[in-house]
Amino acid sequence: MKPDAIVLVSGGMDSCVCAALAQRDRHPAYLHFDYGQRTAAREREAFTAIADHYGIEDRLVIETDFFRLIGGSALTDTRLAVPENGLDESVIPVTYVPFRNAHFLAAAVSWAEVLGAEAIMIGAVAPDSSGYPDCRPEYYQAFNELLRLGTRDGRVRVETPLIGLAKAEIVRLGLELGAPFPLSWSCYQNSAQACGRCDSCRLRRRAFQQAGTSDPIRYATQEGAC
Amino acid sequence: MKPDAIVLVSGGMDSCVCAALAQRDRHPAYLHFDYGQRTAAREREAFTAIADHYGIEDRLVIETDFFRLIGGSALTDTRLAVPENGLDESVIPVTYVPFRNAHFLAAAVSWAEVLGAEAIMIGAVAPDSSGYPDCRPEYYQAFNELLRLGTRDGRVRVETPLIGLAKAEIVRLGLELGAPFPLSWSCYQNSAQACGRCDSCRLRRRAFQQAGTSDPIRYATQEGAC
Repeated sequence: MKPDAIVLVSGGMDSCVCAALAQRDRHPAYLHFDYGQRTAAREREAFTAIADHYGIEDRLVIETDFFRLIGGSALTDTRLAVPENGLDESVIPVTYVPFRNAHFLAAAVSWAEVLGAEAIMIGAVAPDSSGYPDCRPEYYQAFNELLRLGTRDGRVRVETPLIGLAKAEIVRLGLELGAPFPLSWSCYQNSAQACGRCDSCRLRRRAFQQAGTSDPIRYATQEGAC
Repeated sequence: MKPDAIVLVSGGMDSCVCAALAQRDRHPAYLHFDYGQRTAAREREAFTAIADHYGIEDRLVIETDFFRLIGGSALTDTRLAVPENGLDESVIPVTYVPFRNAHFLAAAVSWAEVLGAEAIMIGAVAPDSSGYPDCRPEYYQAFNELLRLGTRDGRVRVETPLIGLAKAEIVRLGLELGAPFPLSWSCYQNSAQACGRCDSCRLRRRAFQQAGTSDPIRYATQEGAC
């Protein structure tokens, strides 16, 4: 079956739910990036597990050392510490990777143009988010305007099915769809066991708590510590 | 001196003039892509020669096999022939690399955010162009809207100083500025001597003729053949 959508699958909880949605509604191809982030190998493992779970044939992993070369983010520069002091949504955190999502989307669009797919799905989330500028709805509206003007036939579009949902709602939606949460990985810091302290772990764990359940993955710190 | 602009320097005649403009007005850093295009090694040589000519300290070459992996363009897939049958500006040619410029711009923006530079300069040209959708003014307006919304402080902007100029005007501007045209490379097809037959050679050679001069680089075919 020819793919009609490209799903950006990082391997985290949001992309896991996005993959579950794509499985229900589309014939998806998966795209994953190894951009030298701290937990790249673990994220790729999660990506592969989710792709295997859903039997995805068309999958592409892009490796790039660009973000490490330029630096500027705690996710790609091990000299910068990953914050563990809780979430402050009013500032852009040091884990922001400069203009990262545009790279991911550009690759997905190029591949979509070649495959003839017209949808790109990304699990970007605005509420309860880490305060990254490239996770806001206006950003994706602007990106779609760029696609209308700058692609072969102007038909490819980015879809952000989770963007207005609170993290707890994403958990509930994932549970409804049977998303393979145990296969997903969100920790910014560790690859063996999720730290439970970085922003990403805190957001994820709180979301499962708020949804009235507990996260199926194991953490190095006790629940409630976030 | 801290760079205040990133110039996308492919090594072709337009980027050569763009580099000359940046030299006059800014303290530029140069960015170049080796994306597996047919003449990648020759273009990188041109990039290096132009950067050396201007004594540019901050330069970055990004290598990616992504476009070869996905295929779909005669520039990156040697099974597709580079057209030699003249220019038809009403259709998108097979040399179009899907959504390529977005990749280049995204990398320039990421680097600009880390360096603290606020301008990206690209030698995109709309009139006398090859009919690529990502060379039109509206595309760059939409990209700048994306930058306003999706970057750390919303200040980075893409500048397209050549976009409204005819190719002959670009040649004249380059001559005025002393742009090192002999160091530049535009041929899509060959790396030893420019073919003179591909779209890029035809556009370039015609531009020098229309500007009342001749191109300082040598061609494998006689002048007038285009």
